[in-house]
Amino acid sequence: MRFMGNFISSKEEEFSKWYLDIVQKAKLVDYSPVKGCMVIMPYGYAIWERIKSILDYKLKETGHENAYFPLLIPYEFLEREKEHVNGFSPELAVITTAGGEALVEPLVLRPTSETIIWNMYSKWIKSYRDLPVKINQWANIIRWEKRTRPFIRTTEFLWQEGHTAHETAEEALEETLFILNLYKRFVEDYLAIPVFCGKKTEREKFAGAISTYTLEALMQDKKALQAGTSHYLGLNFAKAFDVKFQNKKGEMDYVFATSWGVSTRLIGALIMVHSDNKGLILPPKIAPIEVIIVPIFKRDDEANKKILEYSTAIFNILKEAKLRVEIDRDTKNSPGFRFAAAELKGIPIRIEIGFNDILMDCVTVARRDKDKNSKYQVLVKELLSKIRHELETMQCELFNRALEFRNLHTKEIIGFKENDYATFKTYINEDLGFVLSSWCGNEVCEESIKNDTKATIRCIPEEFKNRSLNDLTCIYCSTAAKYLVLFARAY
Amino acid sequence: MRFMGNFISSKEEEFSKWYLDIVQKAKLVDYSPVKGCMVIMPYGYAIWERIKSILDYKLKETGHENAYFPLLIPYEFLEREKEHVNGFSPELAVITTAGGEALVEPLVLRPTSETIIWNMYSKWIKSYRDLPVKINQWANIIRWEKRTRPFIRTTEFLWQEGHTAHETAEEALEETLFILNLYKRFVEDYLAIPVFCGKKTEREKFAGAISTYTLEALMQDKKALQAGTSHYLGLNFAKAFDVKFQNKKGEMDYVFATSWGVSTRLIGALIMVHSDNKGLILPPKIAPIEVIIVPIFKRDDEANKKILEYSTAIFNILKEAKLRVEIDRDTKNSPGFRFAAAELKGIPIRIEIGFNDILMDCVTVARRDKDKNSKYQVLVKELLSKIRHELETMQCELFNRALEFRNLHTKEIIGFKENDYATFKTYINEDLGFVLSSWCGNEVCEESIKNDTKATIRCIPEEFKNRSLNDLTCIYCSTAAKYLVLFARAY
Repeated sequence: MRFMGNFISSKEEEFSKWYLDIVQKAKLVDYSPVKGCMVIMPYGYAIWERIKSILDYKLKETGHENAYFPLLIPYEFLEREKEHVNGFSPELAVITTAGGEALVEPLVLRPTSETIIWNMYSKWIKSYRDLPVKINQWANIIRWEKRTRPFIRTTEFLWQEGHTAHETAEEALEETLFILNLYKRFVEDYLAIPVFCGKKTEREKFAGAISTYTLEALMQDKKALQAGTSHYLGLNFAKAFDVKFQNKKGEMDYVFATSWGVSTRLIGALIMVHSDNKGLILPPKIAPIEVIIVPIFKRDDEANKKILEYSTAIFNILKEAKLRVEIDRDTKNSPGFRFAAAELKGIPIRIEIGFNDILMDCVTVARRDKDKNSKYQVLVKELLSKIRHELETMQCELFNRALEFRNLHTKEIIGFKENDYATFKTYINEDLGFVLSSWCGNEVCEESIKNDTKATIRCIPEEFKNRSLNDLTCIYCSTAAKYLVLFARAY
Repeated sequence: MRFMGNFISSKEEEFSKWYLDIVQKAKLVDYSPVKGCMVIMPYGYAIWERIKSILDYKLKETGHENAYFPLLIPYEFLEREKEHVNGFSPELAVITTAGGEALVEPLVLRPTSETIIWNMYSKWIKSYRDLPVKINQWANIIRWEKRTRPFIRTTEFLWQEGHTAHETAEEALEETLFILNLYKRFVEDYLAIPVFCGKKTEREKFAGAISTYTLEALMQDKKALQAGTSHYLGLNFAKAFDVKFQNKKGEMDYVFATSWGVSTRLIGALIMVHSDNKGLILPPKIAPIEVIIVPIFKRDDEANKKILEYSTAIFNILKEAKLRVEIDRDTKNSPGFRFAAAELKGIPIRIEIGFNDILMDCVTVARRDKDKNSKYQVLVKELLSKIRHELETMQCELFNRALEFRNLHTKEIIGFKENDYATFKTYINEDLGFVLSSWCGNEVCEESIKNDTKATIRCIPEEFKNRSLNDLTCIYCSTAAKYLVLFARAY
């Protein structure tokens, strides 16, 4: 598909190249001169601002406050939590010189902020009256990744990280799951991406967590993507930073912790779930521009003046109704070129206005996710309600389409016959997607499956947790199964 | 003044300690374990979010777009603009190790982003059709400062930095001044801080700029604070990064640049301009909470239930009117303690509700910037219009009070008699404040005055630029004056 002098690879043939074409050609990101660091261009950043403002509102509404903690963390802080430092050490960027002098103690750029935040909590939390603390931070994060891909895995990325402190384990666990559910609703309702939620295995959990809960989405290449995580940290960080409070009985207790985050990676998920070979497709609720008005100019100044006036009147109707709307004032390029440009940017609805539309008091409406033959004329007096209806419908239909795809590519291959592992292996290697299977809980089986198939256990899904495990065996070792788990190859 | 177990130093006696007491005790910031890095606590961050959302709206409204560029910059980029690297080198933090390996080329943490952004502009700008580019970024900045003070000068701070690219020098200069004026209106109308605007001298300008324009405010200790800057960069960065465009005639031209920024330093200015010995005083337009409702509870559960119901009804009236309002539900501490706590936080209006108020269908209204004897009762039916009026009045009065103070401490000591420099020196050393004086334009005089008085030329103020320089002489060397300039000791 060639337009704007640009060529977008076919997602069926070269998925990875298709993805890179879209992020660059829709001007979401550009590569920076520093390896693995991306520049988030205005249109890409506008999507992030939509994500940020909606999520920020939801977090504040549920009693979370924003704050800002330093980027620079003493390396020694990371060492205080053994699993944490082991997990993050390989990815650290280290400052040894600053202000022209060698630093006595090396500082690292935050790969996540548990340590610096719990160091502060040790000053702030003294009594049960200080609890809970529910703080969120919007920040940049640095992790030195070997293989990078825009939005999905970059050396620097933007995220929000919540860090809460609680009196009891129950309350902390409740917060962990509350946030998991808040993320799920956000990702499903706004980004129109269906997710499986559940606990990670010990092998896959966050370095420093007691347990990690995850949202797992399926991309169009049938690989899974972790879209967000919520961690129950128990007393690990309270002990590392000696954060104790006086409880209601007057005794000193350690404080229970959670942490959770989503990042600019969500934009990568948006692209890989919804878009097509013409470019981006954005769910209306997250689109920076919901409606673009494209006046079809003629070789007639008088007519063009009328077309632009009429277009502006339509613009004003939609703007007053608080829709995010723009007019394309390009007079140089052909309508086809301009339609393609709007499609590349994934704008949900395009309104075309030609001279004949004016005569009939109409406009033509085209939806980004529909065939070009499906565009139709609407009377101006019905336009606003029609547009609102289309935006709602499109939001639902994108979700349903993604859900259908996800379900089509989620297969159950449960262990209870001898040759199941062969079936499992063939399926995962050839068809990809999610495979719901049974597992004994042994890390050796998990590791062996990964070696055979490159698939990892994405989570122990909540959705299937009430299913009986009677008679089921581990898909790998055939001993009694302890968990139903989702396998997939993942980003 | 003692309350909440806290002591705030007197601003008349120990201004610097008073400032530090307020930022800590009003819970705006806390010190982090990394020297010179502050933690911005939720209440401090809420003020920053107000600043950010208003300014962001104003920038978008005037055609600026947000984007995000990498934190990490190759050191070599800074070296391409000679004055730029000379200016920033002493303050750089350098990464030499990352991901467990030594970096071939050292990376620095952005002290400002001209270099990385103009490197990208060299890819993005090809033709006059690509211009102007008007991009803004909200980001963290690292400058290794020797002497730090929360908000005013810290190793890490938050800011916005705009970077625009233009076809002509005129257009770039126009943008520089447009932003200067936008900043001035924001700082005066929202933060209620009067500022002098004008050009910096060569000695004081931004490293890499052709000219720097500044906003200068006067703190209550009569020292000046630079509240924001807007730079005309000419072709300096276009030449350093080879950014050329094809002009309308088909020729290749270099691109003209501007950059401009304000930072979390504005919060420091807010405090030092308005606050008193009871704590913060926040102008209503920037206050995270405009109104706090303080129910005065009794030793009578039945009465307290009614008081809380009544308070909630009042809360709902104000909330529905889109005011930023909170109820203080503290049942443990005395009214006096709770009033002091609200005063410490600088909340513009306090509504006290006692049992007698209910009987009379009244509430009691107290304004943060007024004497405690000035509080008065208002009928509920008149409350909303009264509160709106008080908020508007307070906003104006804070500005007027600050302007009066600033003008009282802005003295003209213009050179045209022999002993003027002695007068100037005595005045600046003893009375501080701004001194409007005449200067020959020679850097030697500027430097000598600084050595004698610690005062620098804050700017060549726009406000006085139409005044005649006839017969005026340089305050230092007595040769003919070229400029009227503002001197002050500054932060």
